[in-house]
Amino acid sequence: MMSEFYDTLTQFLAIPGPVEMHPKVYEAMNHHLYGHRTEHFRQIYLDCVEKFKPTINTSQDVYFLAGSGSLGLHAAITNLVSPNDTVINLVNGKFGERVEKITSRFTKNSHSVKVDYGQGITPEMVKEALDAHPDTSLVTITHNETSTGVLNPLPEISKIVHDHGALLMADCITSAGGDLVEMDKWKIDFFVSGSQKCYGLPPGLAFIAFSETATEKMKQVSRNQDFYSDMLMYKDKLSKAPDTPFTPAVGLIYGLQASLELILEEGMENRIKRHRLMGQAYRSALEALGIQLFAQEGFRSNTVTSAVVPESVDAKKMIDTCKKFGILVASGQGTMKGKIWRVGHMNMVGPREILMITSVVELALKQCGANINLGDGTRAALETLNKAY
Amino acid sequence: MMSEFYDTLTQFLAIPGPVEMHPKVYEAMNHHLYGHRTEHFRQIYLDCVEKFKPTINTSQDVYFLAGSGSLGLHAAITNLVSPNDTVINLVNGKFGERVEKITSRFTKNSHSVKVDYGQGITPEMVKEALDAHPDTSLVTITHNETSTGVLNPLPEISKIVHDHGALLMADCITSAGGDLVEMDKWKIDFFVSGSQKCYGLPPGLAFIAFSETATEKMKQVSRNQDFYSDMLMYKDKLSKAPDTPFTPAVGLIYGLQASLELILEEGMENRIKRHRLMGQAYRSALEALGIQLFAQEGFRSNTVTSAVVPESVDAKKMIDTCKKFGILVASGQGTMKGKIWRVGHMNMVGPREILMITSVVELALKQCGANINLGDGTRAALETLNKAY
Repeated sequence: MMSEFYDTLTQFLAIPGPVEMHPKVYEAMNHHLYGHRTEHFRQIYLDCVEKFKPTINTSQDVYFLAGSGSLGLHAAITNLVSPNDTVINLVNGKFGERVEKITSRFTKNSHSVKVDYGQGITPEMVKEALDAHPDTSLVTITHNETSTGVLNPLPEISKIVHDHGALLMADCITSAGGDLVEMDKWKIDFFVSGSQKCYGLPPGLAFIAFSETATEKMKQVSRNQDFYSDMLMYKDKLSKAPDTPFTPAVGLIYGLQASLELILEEGMENRIKRHRLMGQAYRSALEALGIQLFAQEGFRSNTVTSAVVPESVDAKKMIDTCKKFGILVASGQGTMKGKIWRVGHMNMVGPREILMITSVVELALKQCGANINLGDGTRAALETLNKAY
Repeated sequence: MMSEFYDTLTQFLAIPGPVEMHPKVYEAMNHHLYGHRTEHFRQIYLDCVEKFKPTINTSQDVYFLAGSGSLGLHAAITNLVSPNDTVINLVNGKFGERVEKITSRFTKNSHSVKVDYGQGITPEMVKEALDAHPDTSLVTITHNETSTGVLNPLPEISKIVHDHGALLMADCITSAGGDLVEMDKWKIDFFVSGSQKCYGLPPGLAFIAFSETATEKMKQVSRNQDFYSDMLMYKDKLSKAPDTPFTPAVGLIYGLQASLELILEEGMENRIKRHRLMGQAYRSALEALGIQLFAQEGFRSNTVTSAVVPESVDAKKMIDTCKKFGILVASGQGTMKGKIWRVGHMNMVGPREILMITSVVELALKQCGANINLGDGTRAALETLNKAY
């Protein structure tokens, strides 16, 4: 029996964030820190604002808040919702539920469109909910639901929402930077993302951008609901010095600059193609092994794949076995614990990583008693890659 | 057609050194440097000396010279060979040839036992050469010939050499720290290794240890042949302050301490088992693909595997294709260029890395026109690992 080799520091991050980072990002974050109220830092910050825009196809300014992605979701609701506003939350996973929770703190008039975990939300469902609540001023959507691996049809839903005259808040935490997000064309009024997913940084930054319509709405919303995430303050400060209202996370901003440079160097089009192909290669492997994908066909994420743990396999043991072979994968969350496992394929996951993840996952499945033909998964991934390259 | 993704900084090093390093080694090397003529540094240096000994099973002191592994080979000859001494070089690859070249600088009486690249040297060949040159005072051997992937039978050859009354110098540059080296039991008189192979550091340190018999011999050798690698000076300095005669590579010594701690934490027995298993898994994959191994059976290295490029495949293109998929493998050297390719599986190569290397190698072979059944290689590696874990 071989002893275990991989320690905490050498686990490969195949969880859906934090993810593996490029060496240049580590390097940039280790630069000697500089004061944030300086011309030097302002230039770096503004450079990040400009370089971020093409990653989500927007002409709006982008704000980098010191905080997690959840701060961004919190900011969306507190800035866009007054205590009597009607809000519809589209919910098909743990992160949709998080937005639902936040919304209930700021208004009593929140309603949810809920579907089973693993299922996608359709424009028809949204239309029906809006018809039932015609005074709705805001609809929230989780673009890529990290807990289930479902990609919701954001552009189609946005059209319905805007036809109704409501605003749309989109949680793009695990889509932006890896999959396609067209903020302006899709008319996203309030965009939220986070640093530790497809943008390839450590956790600690929330990314926010919003439309003119959202700005107008914010001006009408009660300002005494929040302080730290008052986006009009951020907007005001950025339009002046430029500055941030509070101390920005200087080291992370250095990292962000490096990461955005790498992203633009690869090119968003190539980057999206790569993320989609890696998802496809991994899914082809699971299907070749006879493993059931958890997300409904037609709604499958390009950055996170969830799959059903076979009945003969203990989920925890299987995840621990992946860890024994050096790959950190994620379990299901809440009621999905023990039923599914999840693999993130973001940022630094290219052909060699997807082959490594695939082969370790099938080895772990085999070692945990799954009835699979060892090697069939990786062969399918190899064939998918061989066709694409 | 997908664009290329991996840049220079993200290539995985599957060449036979430098190799991938543990994050703790990077971290240690980035410590604020301290003066070398201090009690602080002396303690670190001595700690390295003590921690190195069990990795090669010796009670002798070990010396860490600022220089490459070739400095160690140079040091061996200049310290052990006077201008009229008779030396036998055992040569079956480019590194054996390097020792042959060094030897010819220091004595006119050097002889070589040469076999074809890919073949091993047997004790019988050595016996025959010693009988032909009975006044031989030194035999040199390349334990693990990196250029061909051949592991020579060092303990058996050492017995023959000592029965004859000669000294043995062993180049253990790509064996020590990963495969078994028993300096005292095997009676290695002069041991040489380097930092960038199984010890998992950047290039820049030569590791040297020698026996009492070697020390006696050194005292008789002309001292005007060398200065920088005069090992009696190193011995003298280490026995006093302790100190080194010249400035040691402080940052690399910090890294060495971290790496030796990791090696001892894993345990040499486990580490050797792991290196052997990874070699076995990779070889099983190549054999399943119908690829011919270059090294003679019974003499195959556990840290470097060389294989014959199929006739239908262009070696350079195949190596470039591995690089396209993020894996840096090595070509053949000298006359072996275009005929073989080499993969190093040292230091940080565990199950997940060997699966990754294997799958990328077979994808590259396929893309370059090899007549292989894509997936058969990785399946074989998976089966080998599944049995062992």
